[in-house]
Amino acid sequence: MKQFSLNDLARMEKPQRVHFVNALSGFKSANIIGTADRKQNTNAAIVSSVFHLGSNPPLLGMILRPHSVARHTLENIDETGVYTVNHVGESFYQQAHQTSARYDRTQSEFDACGLTAGYVDGFHAPYVVESPLQVGMKLVEITPIQHNGTELVIGEVEWVRVAESCVKDDGFLDLAANNTVAVSGLDSYYRTERLARLSYAKPDQPLTELDLDGKKR
Amino acid sequence: MKQFSLNDLARMEKPQRVHFVNALSGFKSANIIGTADRKQNTNAAIVSSVFHLGSNPPLLGMILRPHSVARHTLENIDETGVYTVNHVGESFYQQAHQTSARYDRTQSEFDACGLTAGYVDGFHAPYVVESPLQVGMKLVEITPIQHNGTELVIGEVEWVRVAESCVKDDGFLDLAANNTVAVSGLDSYYRTERLARLSYAKPDQPLTELDLDGKKR
Repeated sequence: MKQFSLNDLARMEKPQRVHFVNALSGFKSANIIGTADRKQNTNAAIVSSVFHLGSNPPLLGMILRPHSVARHTLENIDETGVYTVNHVGESFYQQAHQTSARYDRTQSEFDACGLTAGYVDGFHAPYVVESPLQVGMKLVEITPIQHNGTELVIGEVEWVRVAESCVKDDGFLDLAANNTVAVSGLDSYYRTERLARLSYAKPDQPLTELDLDGKKR
Repeated sequence: MKQFSLNDLARMEKPQRVHFVNALSGFKSANIIGTADRKQNTNAAIVSSVFHLGSNPPLLGMILRPHSVARHTLENIDETGVYTVNHVGESFYQQAHQTSARYDRTQSEFDACGLTAGYVDGFHAPYVVESPLQVGMKLVEITPIQHNGTELVIGEVEWVRVAESCVKDDGFLDLAANNTVAVSGLDSYYRTERLARLSYAKPDQPLTELDLDGKKR
């Protein structure tokens, strides 16, 4: 094992440090955030920073950088109070990555990247039709993270669209069957292969493997 | 596609809703948080909530629930100001899952789960020797998330230990070669297989695939 100090990181060239530090948290989620401004101009942006915040109420968090290519996303969320979170699937991960290009405000990434905008009745923000799991989100709060000028966006789940076959008996969602991808660093995409579902851990009791429906095998 | 409303989620039984909502963010990182109290009693806890917050300064965030099995982790971080983030590898993901059992405060999960505590000179918190990538973290801030009583723990990277072969020319870390696992939901573990690294996206320019060192193929 090689040990890197904070000084070693500081001495790296910027792109090198950005790649390195972006991998330290482990594998990341890959989602496209769908938004529209008040005039219904749509926007799609891939982010790898969506995370689970809580189940009751059902909350998701994500980190956005206000001056990055995600700035239009942040403005639209602020303006309309809604957005969608769309899992990136293996069949369109290259189109999803292309949404990170710095397009003009007037250019929709849906059109530019070959993605299809779909709508749930009465919900302003478009979802990504190609996505195997789409979540409608209502903004709860945008909180600045003072240490680096990023914004923590907290939203509550309003609706979820997913293939019924993906939903297992105990509520588990089989994301591998959806061909949902994972990300590491800035630009590396992965398919996944399930090792196992494991039983609820208790002291002095061995773990057992569960089937997809959550039953002991 | 089946559509679930907020009411549908509310009508689910609690365990079902917890499984369902925990999968909505997509794949998650799998890390063991290593801590010790002032008397050097060690603690290890698996979390799937570590996320990248920024590269300069190098910051990681994570969400902890104060009344969950992670309470000792949170107390130790608050008490000592340091912790480690350790990627979970395929060879010990079952031991990592076992750390989520509700052990007594006096019982170290390192011992109970067959994990080895290692130390970097002068750094109070133990790392997990079995882990392929270990990060020493200095606490920056613990911020309550008001909407659900969780805590956002922000820390700055102090040091990183990783096999030199994992670090590629442009700073990219090859987590798949490390056999780092990903998580979905509460209890499902995955190995990964790389699809591609993709070039930096620009409008009106096609993407190209990169090799592991970040060079065009």
